[in-house]
Amino acid sequence: MTIRNVRVICTAPAGARLVIVKVETSEPDLFGLGCATFTQRHLAVVTAIEKHLKPLLVGRDPSCIEDLFHLMMVNGYWRNGPVLNNAISGVDMALWDIKGKLAGMPLYDLLGGKCRSAAQVYVHADGATAAAVCDSVRSFLDQGYRFIRVQQSGYGGAESRVRRPAGSPAGVYYDTRSYTREVLATLDHVRNEIGESVELLHDVHERLPPIEALQFARDLEPFGLYFLEDCFAPEDVDWFERLRTLSSTPLAMGELFNNPNEWKKLIAERLIDFVRVHISQIGGVTAARHLVSFAAQYAIRTAWHGPGDVSPVGHAANLHLDLWAPNFGVQEWCRFPEQVYEVFPGTPVVRDGYMYPNDRPGLGIEIDEKRAAEYPCPNDVIEWTQVRRHDGSPARP
Amino acid sequence: MTIRNVRVICTAPAGARLVIVKVETSEPDLFGLGCATFTQRHLAVVTAIEKHLKPLLVGRDPSCIEDLFHLMMVNGYWRNGPVLNNAISGVDMALWDIKGKLAGMPLYDLLGGKCRSAAQVYVHADGATAAAVCDSVRSFLDQGYRFIRVQQSGYGGAESRVRRPAGSPAGVYYDTRSYTREVLATLDHVRNEIGESVELLHDVHERLPPIEALQFARDLEPFGLYFLEDCFAPEDVDWFERLRTLSSTPLAMGELFNNPNEWKKLIAERLIDFVRVHISQIGGVTAARHLVSFAAQYAIRTAWHGPGDVSPVGHAANLHLDLWAPNFGVQEWCRFPEQVYEVFPGTPVVRDGYMYPNDRPGLGIEIDEKRAAEYPCPNDVIEWTQVRRHDGSPARP
Amino acid sequence: MTIRNVRVICTAPAGARLVIVKVETSEPDLFGLGCATFTQRHLAVVTAIEKHLKPLLVGRDPSCIEDLFHLMMVNGYWRNGPVLNNAISGVDMALWDIKGKLAGMPLYDLLGGKCRSAAQVYVHADGATAAAVCDSVRSFLDQGYRFIRVQQSGYGGAESRVRRPAGSPAGVYYDTRSYTREVLATLDHVRNEIGESVELLHDVHERLPPIEALQFARDLEPFGLYFLEDCFAPEDVDWFERLRTLSSTPLAMGELFNNPNEWKKLIAERLIDFVRVHISQIGGVTAARHLVSFAAQYAIRTAWHGPGDVSPVGHAANLHLDLWAPNFGVQEWCRFPEQVYEVFPGTPVVRDGYMYPNDRPGLGIEIDEKRAAEYPCPNDVIEWTQVRRHDGSPARP
Amino acid sequence: MTIRNVRVICTAPAGARLVIVKVETSEPDLFGLGCATFTQRHLAVVTAIEKHLKPLLVGRDPSCIEDLFHLMMVNGYWRNGPVLNNAISGVDMALWDIKGKLAGMPLYDLLGGKCRSAAQVYVHADGATAAAVCDSVRSFLDQGYRFIRVQQSGYGGAESRVRRPAGSPAGVYYDTRSYTREVLATLDHVRNEIGESVELLHDVHERLPPIEALQFARDLEPFGLYFLEDCFAPEDVDWFERLRTLSSTPLAMGELFNNPNEWKKLIAERLIDFVRVHISQIGGVTAARHLVSFAAQYAIRTAWHGPGDVSPVGHAANLHLDLWAPNFGVQEWCRFPEQVYEVFPGTPVVRDGYMYPNDRPGLGIEIDEKRAAEYPCPNDVIEWTQVRRHDGSPARP
Repeated sequence: MTIRNVRVICTAPAGARLVIVKVETSEPDLFGLGCATFTQRHLAVVTAIEKHLKPLLVGRDPSCIEDLFHLMMVNGYWRNGPVLNNAISGVDMALWDIKGKLAGMPLYDLLGGKCRSAAQVYVHADGATAAAVCDSVRSFLDQGYRFIRVQQSGYGGAESRVRRPAGSPAGVYYDTRSYTREVLATLDHVRNEIGESVELLHDVHERLPPIEALQFARDLEPFGLYFLEDCFAPEDVDWFERLRTLSSTPLAMGELFNNPNEWKKLIAERLIDFVRVHISQIGGVTAARHLVSFAAQYAIRTAWHGPGDVSPVGHAANLHLDLWAPNFGVQEWCRFPEQVYEVFPGTPVVRDGYMYPNDRPGLGIEIDEKRAAEYPCPNDVIEWTQVRRHDGSPARP
Repeated sequence: MTIRNVRVICTAPAGARLVIVKVETSEPDLFGLGCATFTQRHLAVVTAIEKHLKPLLVGRDPSCIEDLFHLMMVNGYWRNGPVLNNAISGVDMALWDIKGKLAGMPLYDLLGGKCRSAAQVYVHADGATAAAVCDSVRSFLDQGYRFIRVQQSGYGGAESRVRRPAGSPAGVYYDTRSYTREVLATLDHVRNEIGESVELLHDVHERLPPIEALQFARDLEPFGLYFLEDCFAPEDVDWFERLRTLSSTPLAMGELFNNPNEWKKLIAERLIDFVRVHISQIGGVTAARHLVSFAAQYAIRTAWHGPGDVSPVGHAANLHLDLWAPNFGVQEWCRFPEQVYEVFPGTPVVRDGYMYPNDRPGLGIEIDEKRAAEYPCPNDVIEWTQVRRHDGSPARP
Repeated sequence: MTIRNVRVICTAPAGARLVIVKVETSEPDLFGLGCATFTQRHLAVVTAIEKHLKPLLVGRDPSCIEDLFHLMMVNGYWRNGPVLNNAISGVDMALWDIKGKLAGMPLYDLLGGKCRSAAQVYVHADGATAAAVCDSVRSFLDQGYRFIRVQQSGYGGAESRVRRPAGSPAGVYYDTRSYTREVLATLDHVRNEIGESVELLHDVHERLPPIEALQFARDLEPFGLYFLEDCFAPEDVDWFERLRTLSSTPLAMGELFNNPNEWKKLIAERLIDFVRVHISQIGGVTAARHLVSFAAQYAIRTAWHGPGDVSPVGHAANLHLDLWAPNFGVQEWCRFPEQVYEVFPGTPVVRDGYMYPNDRPGLGIEIDEKRAAEYPCPNDVIEWTQVRRHDGSPARP
Repeated sequence: MTIRNVRVICTAPAGARLVIVKVETSEPDLFGLGCATFTQRHLAVVTAIEKHLKPLLVGRDPSCIEDLFHLMMVNGYWRNGPVLNNAISGVDMALWDIKGKLAGMPLYDLLGGKCRSAAQVYVHADGATAAAVCDSVRSFLDQGYRFIRVQQSGYGGAESRVRRPAGSPAGVYYDTRSYTREVLATLDHVRNEIGESVELLHDVHERLPPIEALQFARDLEPFGLYFLEDCFAPEDVDWFERLRTLSSTPLAMGELFNNPNEWKKLIAERLIDFVRVHISQIGGVTAARHLVSFAAQYAIRTAWHGPGDVSPVGHAANLHLDLWAPNFGVQEWCRFPEQVYEVFPGTPVVRDGYMYPNDRPGLGIEIDEKRAAEYPCPNDVIEWTQVRRHDGSPARP
């Protein structure tokens, strides 16, 4: 059996540009699907797959996943970046999907079998005021969720409350100091109103100067967060050492990671508590499985990135890893609208705060290519990452 | 003045696929050139520039380079990878070229002025036997070079001398143990024949298991290398600490780096002696200028990557940085054939082992687009990075 | 083009002795200005420039700034001290001013272009009582300032409240224990009266014994300072490690630094949050530009020293660096009186809490030598640095 | 009793510009002498003393040396640099000279009394060839010296043997690689010819890139140096940690130090074996006495800088410290010509490799101002510190 073809399907049924890889084999009707979604640079990923990976792969044995993963990684010489890792992930997940179908087993069974029958998930509450946020939290509790990420006006306010200098360019503005003050007030309000029966999370989204993240982690302690996400930008992860000596707030990190040098020290020195990479951004299931094994050496839990720009194929891969991993923590969940389930039959479902698999072989997910074609991908300039501090300085999103 | 257009030109006058960016401004005839050459994944870079960066940039002010560099970096959210860094580099270098032309100054003058009138270079001697290598070294000495990198059969022999198991896949095979033995014997031969008047270098090309690299660095000490390149793969740079406590062989590292987390600790803890990144791979002149300043704090010298898959535009950028940087060490030089000088008028010239600039404004280099079109880029599968150890294991190139 | 002359102009239009260097070139009317103001030892700086640097420089090429910077640094063999660094700074800034004029570009454009259109500034509120301080803060808020440094009776009280022993010498006395108590009470008052809409700063001015600085940093936490300045004397910076493990109060440090060994570890180990050197004290723009790049590796921000004994030329250099630096934080501002603007046309102006450039080439500042001559420099003995603790001990200012 | 006057005397009886301070008291004929010799910037020191220190000091009590030392240090606010430290040293040594005269005791008695009756010294052998160096060593042995610093053509050869690029500026050129090879060959020759009966030293004079200094320290091990001087520039002292893990060559460091942050870590972490500061460069006897006490905590020995640009007054101060210090190691000695003894009656004398004091009160040295005036100081541009590497790069002297 060989790889006969590698195809890419782009679709945007819920707005985000999703990139799906289909690896077809020499066996009739035997193929696999993988997620290669780097939504902000999706066309570069498509080119990388169609022009660079496909010619490398066609004719090779799809069963040697570990070998092919390594080959794809080093074939370009330079590696560990978001475009190529996503391209590799698309293929890698598809190869695991094929292997599952060949075995007649769900992926979690190939990984070692289930440690749990469903994965607990967290969802996103948000609002412009403390009261609105509190209403959102209550609504999720009513739907059976127990883990709820609480944000105040997104990641720091669409508009800074602070006067900016004349001549400042267009962009998304925010002010870090008023952001942290407001979030603390909102969490205080939520805890007062709702109490301790809900697990609260919060995402800094790398927006704070390091010292403000340190202070914030300390100020959050009375609210007993389940975890605080992405305190620092990936370029600044060496600040975790300082944070860790000053606060015991549980820390989750990693949605922006592409390079092992970003996570190795954090794990081996126990500087974080949850590793939450975006698995297509690190190269797919093969890379994520190794990462589970590594993090487990240090009792660090997983909390894979699960936003709307992870495709349903990627969410399925998240879920299989979640069901197996001895050190699973919690799964982020984006609550796809109905049309996504139509384009991707088999998309995981969530009931009462738990995500359940469908127990079909492989990833257990399909794509209806005709329905997918009804949702073509736009190629807009990305606006939300054109972020600036209140004084006009360019900032991290 | 605004950015009016961003174009990409691909050409392969000497075999390697070169990717050149041309940023055109609203001023008639005012444009800049930049190198975006990631030769193994050139089409993904082209897509990234044409489809993702161009729409972001058109209409903006080309003088705010630092701001645009940051904007390009974070606009995709995920970053620090080879495809996007090269795309950014193409634009970044072109913006510096434009600024130099506006100022009427060579780039080295904008950077702070010359610290030397030319940059010393090293070239590559190679051969299948110690005698052939020695002849190659002698020939370079006769041409006026003083810094010579000595390899034995490339990076470890096209074919391993060791029997491999039946059923091993196709690929480029090598055996690390015989490689190190042969290189040591060849260096011994060269030193005996030629003496101490030549500076010898060697490139491990990340191919050795870490402990073999440690042993090798120690075994090399009697030969007084100027430096040893790329002892470890970028994923394994934390091994430098061990190496450094065992050997004083001078260490150069970095051609594969894309991410600040790969180089920060190596520099701040003085674990290497020469930082030799490929400057388009870290994002261009803006990134390299910051890196020069950072490395200078620790008396670590620069030795930018300068192979045939850095375009002449990239070599010009290397040279301008070399002439300015207070901590310049040595420049790798690939000796372009004549037709490259015809496609790229202003390509740096080397005389008597020194590379000289032409003192025109900006980068001082042009592209003859008609001549460039005569050398279209092939899109072959990359063979030389399909490397395997003698037992068939996938290996790093 | 060569350096034709190096002249020094001293003037004191607002009380402080300012030292300005004028580097004249062989081109008619092409010259540059630089700040060499070490107000307490201004005549030693004048001698260093006129007798030692001028003969070294005349006849050399002014475009090789990096080379000349290095030459000036090592020509005296001993280096990194305040007299010589200021002398070098005077020349270095003037060379950058010349380069900007030659290029027809403001200095910020040579540095890499603007990252913001103006620089946010902080000013100094002071008073003998909590109420007086609060009034001063309110007045600055009314003028549009948002960052306000709050002091209580200067840096600890003109007179200690504690009885000193008979026979104690003359001097400026203070008592560290009552100083910290009073400042904490005043900050509590200001926060109660004015709330969270103002960013407060405080300057210890190196006056506390290390353990009292540690305690103070912790006691300050409820007041959410933007930063705390100069916790320790430069001789005691190794105490930052201890402080950092005990407090997350943001730390700014550096106005007294002259030597790279004073700042390197603080930055690379992330022991401070803002580097706020006096840029003429570290050698000028060349040194400051390298320092920006170094600090940026660690997400540490700049907050250059900007008191009345930085000349308007030095403030202009601060501003150009501020507009460019990707990691700019905030700029100290001394609010020059009107006659300073007359002596130095082009002195930066502040509106609504932001400092704006004038966009002329180079530093964009001039000196009216006739007006300057109307304000000759006195050579008084410096009184305010003759400081003593309450028991008569000699103390750091 | 008060300080009545502070005067400066400059003289150059042996070529080097020497700066002597004379502090006169209100007691008739009671005065002290101190060394303020910063020969490369002597006029800046003169101004600092006459214009800045003198007005501060006149009228104060000369007996409070520790208090005045502190006052002089902090009165300029910025401190720890070469111009001001030398100015302070001139006064500080003179105050100790006065105190000794008042007590009727040599300075070593005030310090705590003699631990030895004379100080062993080392002298400088040099030559253009190994044979010439060996002859020089033999000649010193014949004169009774046992500690001999061996240099080959100064600090690396007046002229590099390596071709430099066209257009290189004037300067003193050297090539680090040929320098180390030649010194090793010369030491091998000397050990073979003379054997182990002589203690050999060598001075790198901060000229090597750090990694070459590391290699050199290891390569020197077979020759059993007494110590290796100044392996690194003062800006690069953090490299000692690396050197120390790789070599046990005894290390002396410090002639360029002005700032406690340069020496504290080296001593407290036992990274050097001999502290050899230039005592007027750290502020004089008060500072040196504290440094002796500190180094003694770690069994690190002293080896004060003693070249021809330490005045005889400074050599006398060195000697008094040497006689007292429990952790004295060895004293550098420059062998003054006869006329220096005439200008400075009481200049220490060396017999059979030991330097002896004259046992007069205080420093035991005088200046014949009339004879001193016969040797006025030139103000040439310093040439020997305009050093460049073989490729034209600016280098450290």
